[in-house]
Amino acid sequence: MESTTMPPRGEVATDETANLISADKVIGAAVYNRQAEHLGSVHSLMLNKFNGRVAYAVMSFGGFLGIGESYHPLPWRVLTYDTRQDGYIVDLDRDRLKNAPSYTPATEADWLRDRDRIDAYYAMPSV
Amino acid sequence: MESTTMPPRGEVATDETANLISADKVIGAAVYNRQAEHLGSVHSLMLNKFNGRVAYAVMSFGGFLGIGESYHPLPWRVLTYDTRQDGYIVDLDRDRLKNAPSYTPATEADWLRDRDRIDAYYAMPSV
Repeated sequence: MESTTMPPRGEVATDETANLISADKVIGAAVYNRQAEHLGSVHSLMLNKFNGRVAYAVMSFGGFLGIGESYHPLPWRVLTYDTRQDGYIVDLDRDRLKNAPSYTPATEADWLRDRDRIDAYYAMPSV
Repeated sequence: MESTTMPPRGEVATDETANLISADKVIGAAVYNRQAEHLGSVHSLMLNKFNGRVAYAVMSFGGFLGIGESYHPLPWRVLTYDTRQDGYIVDLDRDRLKNAPSYTPATEADWLRDRDRIDAYYAMPSV
């Protein structure tokens, strides 16, 4: 699969290929819904220390959800990378995102408590 | 396994658990060799866009290798997280690191070219 998605040499920046991207570039990347509406952006990434997988992308959806500045941790597998839009797609409707586990700048995440809630909400096994 | 490595609630910061760490904290984390000598730090992370795995940790080994500011992309699996030192261990000797594929601030990485060289040097399949 890799060879078919690899563009000709020289077409991409040095901090990125068709398959690789710097964590610094994922953080801040745009997030859309299936209707290509801009939902927000990736605020931070939570990595599994041991297996090196991105476990959660913490999304910032402030404007779209109309609930002020809030952070929504989503299991990484909820996000689909879209090459056309050069961003991520989250196929969840507004209410589902609005009611999801979230925190605000004033109420920090408590990952020991929140992981189970997040995984259950999106019905995803932990990675 | 997860439950046995999970510390009691309240022992860790909210941006980290026993298993999870923010990408922002991995970037800048200390790297040691097996003799607990400080080699350098994690300069950046290259993620696989599609499967969400950390493919490469780009290390900064300037002082230790004595070759000035240089960046060495290492396959993620070469790094072992060490809870005692709260950093990563790379079990490679100085010459092996010094001769590895690297780039300097003046010679940017060319990932299309370098991935094969890096994987071959460390004899790791791509992720």
